[in-house]
Amino acid sequence: MSDINKLIKEIVKFRDERDWEQFHNSKDLALALSIESSELLELFLWKSNEDFKLDKLKEELADVLMYAFLLADKHDLNIHDIILDKIKKNEEKYPVDKSKGNSTKYNEL
Amino acid sequence: MSDINKLIKEIVKFRDERDWEQFHNSKDLALALSIESSELLELFLWKSNEDFKLDKLKEELADVLMYAFLLADKHDLNIHDIILDKIKKNEEKYPVDKSKGNSTKYNEL
Amino acid sequence: MSDINKLIKEIVKFRDERDWEQFHNSKDLALALSIESSELLELFLWKSNEDFKLDKLKEELADVLMYAFLLADKHDLNIHDIILDKIKKNEEKYPVDKSKGNSTKYNEL
Amino acid sequence: MSDINKLIKEIVKFRDERDWEQFHNSKDLALALSIESSELLELFLWKSNEDFKLDKLKEELADVLMYAFLLADKHDLNIHDIILDKIKKNEEKYPVDKSKGNSTKYNEL
Repeated sequence: MSDINKLIKEIVKFRDERDWEQFHNSKDLALALSIESSELLELFLWKSNEDFKLDKLKEELADVLMYAFLLADKHDLNIHDIILDKIKKNEEKYPVDKSKGNSTKYNEL
Repeated sequence: MSDINKLIKEIVKFRDERDWEQFHNSKDLALALSIESSELLELFLWKSNEDFKLDKLKEELADVLMYAFLLADKHDLNIHDIILDKIKKNEEKYPVDKSKGNSTKYNEL
Repeated sequence: MSDINKLIKEIVKFRDERDWEQFHNSKDLALALSIESSELLELFLWKSNEDFKLDKLKEELADVLMYAFLLADKHDLNIHDIILDKIKKNEEKYPVDKSKGNSTKYNEL
Repeated sequence: MSDINKLIKEIVKFRDERDWEQFHNSKDLALALSIESSELLELFLWKSNEDFKLDKLKEELADVLMYAFLLADKHDLNIHDIILDKIKKNEEKYPVDKSKGNSTKYNEL
């Protein structure tokens, strides 16, 4: 039910029914991802931290994830692997003893 | 292996070891997501569409996905459900006969 | 002292000494502008509204403005004119009686 | 005619007629700037580098500049000064002999 590969198949099916793969070069997928993230961000503009519409958040988050998954699929990236690899890198950049309770960026730690 | 819930558990474990949940209000998670998407986009700046470093792409895409998953987790959103719901909405906005082979945005179709 | 055209000349001089105009197509200038705006935004990540470093803000804002000016210059846009035109449009979208003290977006007014 | 201070006065007048200064904390101005830059970027999505609508570009660029100017005005930043200061810094990061005809980022030069 939470299997990413099945989800990606649904997204690819939607894309291919519309013959849209021709537009989905890597650079434009990166643009689309950034644009959708910005639309999600707009839900919070001029608002306090938890003042947003949940229905809109669901839609914008789905848009973000769909482009992220399409970019992963295009380059045969295994989402499980790239996230676990990044967590390992972050563990080195943000050792618990230095970063606990501290939001400072690693290059300023 | 591609189970989203297990992945989210790993991300949350990394966060909680550092006691970072206190910083993760919804608005700042949306900022982080947008900022990471922009870092991914930067891989393509002044470059042609497929000229990018795959290792960097993996890292930036992982960062984007981690904040997207944290935002979903914060609001108990089921990623499978929100994506399938959005695909349904997109099927109405982009009917196959109007949008096949056509990248025009729905409000200009 | 605050003459935009003189400023643009300085920016163009810096660009031309490095022979960078060849990279400055409109799409990549738009990417650069979006990426710099995101770097400015990052100054506020995990922070309260007025908690930022002024020196960093100056630098990031300068970067944003330089790409905005380069994009205007590339298309011979008069910055004075495009801003006054947009203010006029915004006056129609946001009539004072409906929008006074109200941050709601025009399409939800 | 291209005097920035006069332009900023027009923008501030529009803002104050609507009593919007109360919403314009620095963080949200940075969000607005980033969101508007992303809307400008969207004009180029799925398009080749010079395939965009000039009328739309004018409007989006005006929006970007207005928020950049409002942020500068809020902190009494002199736009002329911050840009000339940044050009000086960039001259050190990008010496002509290393960066001529080369789009590589300074930290990879």
